[in-house]
Amino acid sequence: MTSTSAAPPVAEDYPADGPVIDVVHVGLGPIGRQVLDFMAGRSRYRTAGAVDINPDLTGRTVNDVLGAEVASNSVRVVETITEVGPVSSGAVAIHCAGSSLERVAPVLTSLMQAGFHVVSTCEELANPWAIQPELAASLDRTAQLNNVVLLGTGVNPGYSMDYLPVVLAASQRSVRAVSVHRVQDAGQRRLPLQRKVGAGLSEAEFAERVREGAIRHVGLPESAWIIDRALNLGCTAVTETLDPIVARAPVPLGSGVIEEGRVLGIDQLVLGQRDGVTLVRLHLQMAVGLDDPRDTVTLDGEPGLESVIRGLHGDSATAAVVVNSLGRVRIAPPGLRTVDEIPAAPVNM
Amino acid sequence: MTSTSAAPPVAEDYPADGPVIDVVHVGLGPIGRQVLDFMAGRSRYRTAGAVDINPDLTGRTVNDVLGAEVASNSVRVVETITEVGPVSSGAVAIHCAGSSLERVAPVLTSLMQAGFHVVSTCEELANPWAIQPELAASLDRTAQLNNVVLLGTGVNPGYSMDYLPVVLAASQRSVRAVSVHRVQDAGQRRLPLQRKVGAGLSEAEFAERVREGAIRHVGLPESAWIIDRALNLGCTAVTETLDPIVARAPVPLGSGVIEEGRVLGIDQLVLGQRDGVTLVRLHLQMAVGLDDPRDTVTLDGEPGLESVIRGLHGDSATAAVVVNSLGRVRIAPPGLRTVDEIPAAPVNM
Repeated sequence: MTSTSAAPPVAEDYPADGPVIDVVHVGLGPIGRQVLDFMAGRSRYRTAGAVDINPDLTGRTVNDVLGAEVASNSVRVVETITEVGPVSSGAVAIHCAGSSLERVAPVLTSLMQAGFHVVSTCEELANPWAIQPELAASLDRTAQLNNVVLLGTGVNPGYSMDYLPVVLAASQRSVRAVSVHRVQDAGQRRLPLQRKVGAGLSEAEFAERVREGAIRHVGLPESAWIIDRALNLGCTAVTETLDPIVARAPVPLGSGVIEEGRVLGIDQLVLGQRDGVTLVRLHLQMAVGLDDPRDTVTLDGEPGLESVIRGLHGDSATAAVVVNSLGRVRIAPPGLRTVDEIPAAPVNM
Repeated sequence: MTSTSAAPPVAEDYPADGPVIDVVHVGLGPIGRQVLDFMAGRSRYRTAGAVDINPDLTGRTVNDVLGAEVASNSVRVVETITEVGPVSSGAVAIHCAGSSLERVAPVLTSLMQAGFHVVSTCEELANPWAIQPELAASLDRTAQLNNVVLLGTGVNPGYSMDYLPVVLAASQRSVRAVSVHRVQDAGQRRLPLQRKVGAGLSEAEFAERVREGAIRHVGLPESAWIIDRALNLGCTAVTETLDPIVARAPVPLGSGVIEEGRVLGIDQLVLGQRDGVTLVRLHLQMAVGLDDPRDTVTLDGEPGLESVIRGLHGDSATAAVVVNSLGRVRIAPPGLRTVDEIPAAPVNM
């Protein structure tokens, strides 16, 4: 039996049909540049400004910074948001500059006061309600006063260890516990990330850098609290552990090698618990030479579920999640929002 | 390194903190009953009414119909919605009674005119915009006039072949094509479903029942058009093919057996295409004795992705998706909505 439907889709008030959206890019590091690059193919968005404090970048065109031909190539990088020209109502600022919410809060506040919706890759912004409640409430008030949405997102936090398990849980009658295991091969990632996970260090050096706070993937506790809240699990504490993954044999990296006994990367574990029972288990392994990069979500529930995804590459997925959230940020209720409060993202627009 | 955060989560205007929501159940067939059963554990919702035209059910209490002790057990089944007692503002009607949108549209309209948000398992409601645009526009107008949300959902359509691929696409820079392969073992499902897929029929009987319209899983074209729109793929036509899966050797079913040469179930294929190029491929195999039930989503994109989920059982997941959509239906903009326009669903509430 074969049948065909050939009617054109009717879109009505679907986000794709809205006006072009002005976007200002704040922070042109590796992720910020990838976001700009990804935006080039989207007709829905117009690059209205680019901001970075790096004097090597200010004054240059976006095209020049990217070393490529992209849309709105005549936009020049400026040092502060006040130097950006006029933007249309409903403009969005994409902020890719820092993991510490306390440190970036003044910039986020300025952007909201200037009337921008803000999407930021600041990991602690993904869900500050549990961990920095006063700062969260203050940012929420600013967003509501200025009638804009503030959202922290990316691949992790923002997607693989929080949004996806919440989405998968919708298929369950009930969920008792959630486990996510994310394995990333740092050997396929950019050099700063290999440094960030301590690749090549001795165990003593690794321990020292952990003490300094230089080695830690930020955002896992934030993800744990998103899951806890969305699934009403009742966690009372979230605990984080960070250990090195050590080479048991020489492991090739680029043109060199990481010798046996040296650090390959991180093994980070976050447990959300109540009365000693683990309700959320987020396990991140990010190291050079890890086989079979994948994201596994296991729901202990009724009836329970296992999901395995291959292809959630760190940097690229962070830029994609940010870009793909733009259309929906504008239709969410004003305030500080978390990813589970935003509808699924339109793509290719 | 170990660190702990023990602050309580702050929820603010998160849906969990809102008032109890009155729910009226319209249609107490197998899915409607499972929805009622699933609702029993949720403190957020109160069963305010139950409606079914079946004279074997009217007048009986919900508890009696379910044969179990559930919340709000004193509610009696009535024949029409007008007999339901007063409900609070923002009440939701769950409609589980029919796949044909044309046939159920009058009931959906009555429910919206009575002030209910409506979540329905009517497969054609999952996305009528492309296939029944006039009916879609009419229902959308009614919803907007009455300031309510109308949503068609379930596991398929509503989740596995539309919502999930759209959610997964958010991790991609761009998506060229989407493929979903859903394999369900009908032997593990309820008897009406085994009949619906033609299990035990001869091939001639199967062909005859397909011609009568009695064997077909409704909703795949609707899912294809959701994906097409959300990912802006540009399909110009959607084609559907339905074939039998035939036993090559005797296959056990319950206490009996399906003989060689008899039908085990359906093999249904929907292709969304433009200029002969396939952009959406939805392949549903639902038959007795199929190994390894699973849902595989493959995104052909940049960088591309594969997701394999085990545990999306048909009936149970449909009831769960419906129940877990209740909290968010109420915060969506009024009108006829599709699943990709609604935020991720809270669970256990």
